[in-house]
Amino acid sequence: METRGYKRPVLGIIGGGQLGRMLIQAAVDLDVEVHIVDPDEDAPCRYLAKTFSHGNYRDYDTVLNFGNGLANHNPVLTIEFEDINTQALEELEGRGVRVYPQPRVIKLIQDKGAQKQFYADNDIPTAPFHLIGNRAEALAYADKGPFFQKLRRGGYDGKGVMKMATAEDFNAAYDAPSILEELVPFEKELSVIVARNPQGEVKAFPAVEMYFNPIANLVEFLFSPAKITAEQEKRANEIAVQIATKLEIVGILAVEMFLTKEGEILVNEMAPRPHNSGHQTIEGNITSQYEQHLRAILGLPLGDTSLIKPTAMLNLLGEPGFEGEAVYEGMDELLKIEGVYPHLYGKRFTKPYRKMGHITVIADTVEELLAKTDKVKGVVKVRA
Amino acid sequence: METRGYKRPVLGIIGGGQLGRMLIQAAVDLDVEVHIVDPDEDAPCRYLAKTFSHGNYRDYDTVLNFGNGLANHNPVLTIEFEDINTQALEELEGRGVRVYPQPRVIKLIQDKGAQKQFYADNDIPTAPFHLIGNRAEALAYADKGPFFQKLRRGGYDGKGVMKMATAEDFNAAYDAPSILEELVPFEKELSVIVARNPQGEVKAFPAVEMYFNPIANLVEFLFSPAKITAEQEKRANEIAVQIATKLEIVGILAVEMFLTKEGEILVNEMAPRPHNSGHQTIEGNITSQYEQHLRAILGLPLGDTSLIKPTAMLNLLGEPGFEGEAVYEGMDELLKIEGVYPHLYGKRFTKPYRKMGHITVIADTVEELLAKTDKVKGVVKVRA
Repeated sequence: METRGYKRPVLGIIGGGQLGRMLIQAAVDLDVEVHIVDPDEDAPCRYLAKTFSHGNYRDYDTVLNFGNGLANHNPVLTIEFEDINTQALEELEGRGVRVYPQPRVIKLIQDKGAQKQFYADNDIPTAPFHLIGNRAEALAYADKGPFFQKLRRGGYDGKGVMKMATAEDFNAAYDAPSILEELVPFEKELSVIVARNPQGEVKAFPAVEMYFNPIANLVEFLFSPAKITAEQEKRANEIAVQIATKLEIVGILAVEMFLTKEGEILVNEMAPRPHNSGHQTIEGNITSQYEQHLRAILGLPLGDTSLIKPTAMLNLLGEPGFEGEAVYEGMDELLKIEGVYPHLYGKRFTKPYRKMGHITVIADTVEELLAKTDKVKGVVKVRA
Repeated sequence: METRGYKRPVLGIIGGGQLGRMLIQAAVDLDVEVHIVDPDEDAPCRYLAKTFSHGNYRDYDTVLNFGNGLANHNPVLTIEFEDINTQALEELEGRGVRVYPQPRVIKLIQDKGAQKQFYADNDIPTAPFHLIGNRAEALAYADKGPFFQKLRRGGYDGKGVMKMATAEDFNAAYDAPSILEELVPFEKELSVIVARNPQGEVKAFPAVEMYFNPIANLVEFLFSPAKITAEQEKRANEIAVQIATKLEIVGILAVEMFLTKEGEILVNEMAPRPHNSGHQTIEGNITSQYEQHLRAILGLPLGDTSLIKPTAMLNLLGEPGFEGEAVYEGMDELLKIEGVYPHLYGKRFTKPYRKMGHITVIADTVEELLAKTDKVKGVVKVRA
C-alpha cells in the first residue's frame, strides 16, 4: 500500500460487537482511525472509535450513508458480522471504496446454499447435500435421511439448524430455502483461519480443535495445536488456503471443518471475518487474527502465524438463570492462576448463554494446557 | 476487591498520551470504563475513552473537577505522567476517592531532591549527592566536581539535567533548587518495573538493559533479559521490591538503575507509572506492565511477570529535520520481518525526536534478538 509511506488509515467497521472491539485493540497499534456503525447504543465498541453511528447495518441507507460519510478519506470498509446489507456495500464498492471482504464474498457466504455449491464446484470436500426451496421439497427426502436441515439465510451459532430423522421431523421442517446435509459421523471439529491480502499473499494459522456446548451450540472450549496428525494438519491448511485463493477474498476467513472417523477433512462452513476460533491467537500466536485481518485489508504484508505456546480458549457465557447487569464472580481466583487472560466484552447486560467474554490459557505443553484449562473452567461465572 | 463479584470498574486517567493509550488497550479486556483528562485536543487517547475532558492537568480546578465528576461511581484515579496537580489529588483522596499511585508518592517523586533523600533514608544505594537551593550554593561545590546538576522539579527525558565540570559550567548552573549528583562511571543502565497492590502483594519484572540516544537523551533501545549475572538480577529485583514496599505504593513503579563498573547497582530515578522501559512486556512477558498496573490499582491479584521470550524495544522517534503530519516510511519492509510489532501512538504531528511509537522485537535467544534488532533499527523513519 505504500507509495510514499504509511499514513493513518481510515477504517469503517460494519458492526460494533466484541470482534470489532478486539479489532480496535489491534488497530490502535497501527494508528488506524476507526468508525463504527451498530444498532446497539451500548455496543462493545461504543467508546473506542472516533465516531459511532447508531443504525441498523441490515438497512441499505444506513450502510450507504456510513460509507459515504467516510468516502472522502480513502477508507477501507470491513465487517465484523456477515448478516449486513451487502447491496449498499456493492454500491460503495462500485463508487471506488475498498470494501474487504468483498461484497460478493459476503453474499456468497450469507447463503449457505451458495456456499455449499461453491465447495462442490471447486472440489473442496464437504458433506453431501441437497438444495431445497421449501418444506414440500424437503419431504421428498424423508426416506433418505437423517439430515441436518440448515436455513440458507440468517442462521448463526446453531440457530436455523434442525436435525431431520423421523417423518415427524420432516413434517416440522423449516418451510424456507435450505440445505439438507447428510450427517457425517465426525471425530473432531477443527477450524483454520486464513488470510489473503490484495497482493495475493495467503497465510493460514495452525488448526484449532473445538468443543461445543451442546445446549447453546456455541464453541465452549478450543485449543491449538490440534491433536491431529501432521498430515491432517497439512490437509486442513491446504483446504483453507485453497478456499481463500479461489474466493480471492481480501481479509480473514475462518474455515470450520470436520475430521471424520476415517480421518478425512470436510469443510463445514466459513465466516469472512475474525472468528471465535481465533480469539486465542491474541496471546498464542506471533500475529493475532485481528492484526492479520488489518494487515490484509490495509494491503500490508501478512504476519507470521506460528504458535508461540499451546493455547486454549474458553468462552465466558452468561449463566443460565441470570439476566441483568453483569457481575463476574471468581475473577480474583482466576487471576491468581498464572498465564490466564480474561477478555471481557464490555456488555453491560448478561442473559443465559450470551457471549460475555472469553478466557485464554497458555502453557508449555498441550498436556499441561488441557489440565490447566480444566482447572480454569467454571472458575468465573457471569451472573446478574 | 471482590465482595460480591467483579463489576465494570470506573477509571479516571490524568493524562491521555501513549501510556494512557496502551493502558486503555489493556483496560478493554477487564471491561474498565475509562475517562481521560488531557490538555491536548488531539491526544493519543482522544477517541478511546468514554469521556475526554480537555483541560490542563497541572491546574488544581481541572483535576479536582475531573475527579469530582466521577466521584459518584466509586472510581479509581491514576496517572500516566507525574507532572500533574497533586494538591487536587490529595483533596480527592481526602474525600475518599481511591487515587493510585497515592498523591504522597507522586509528590515525593516529582521532587528529585526528596526522591534522593528517600533513597538515603532507606539504605537504597544511589550516587552520592548534595541538595542545593540556587546557583550560589552550587558554586560552593565548584572544586568538588564533576557533577550532574538536576533540577528538583519539572525535568524529564533528560531535560533539566546539566553536566557540571568546569568553572564555566558552574557559572551557568541552573539557579534553582537542584541536586548535584556525583558522576558514577557505569557499565550499563538497567530498569526494573515493580508493582504493588493494596493487599501488599509486590512483584517485579525481570531487569531490562537500556541504551540511550545521546542527542535526544531518550531510551533508544532496550532488551530483556539483561545481560547481567544472576546475582545482579537478584539484587536489582530486591532493590525494586524494597522501594515499592517502603513507599507502600499502589500501582506500578519503574526503577532506573546504574550497574557500576564494580558491579554495584545504584538507583538513578523512578517513575510511578507505566514506563518506556516496560513497553516490551506487552509481547514479551506473561503479564504486561499495563495489565499489571490495572491489576494493582483495581486491587486484583498481581500477574506472573516471567518473560515468554527474549524481547527488545526500539523507540520510534521523529526524524530530525521533519515537522508536520506524520508519515511512516518503511512499514512494509518492517512488517515483512517475522516477530516484529509496531506500536504507533496515534500522534498526528511529528517533530524531531518526538516519541511517535515503538517497535517490539521478539526472538528465541538473546543473540538472535540482538541481531534481529540491528536489522530492524532504522527500517522505519517518521517523516512529514
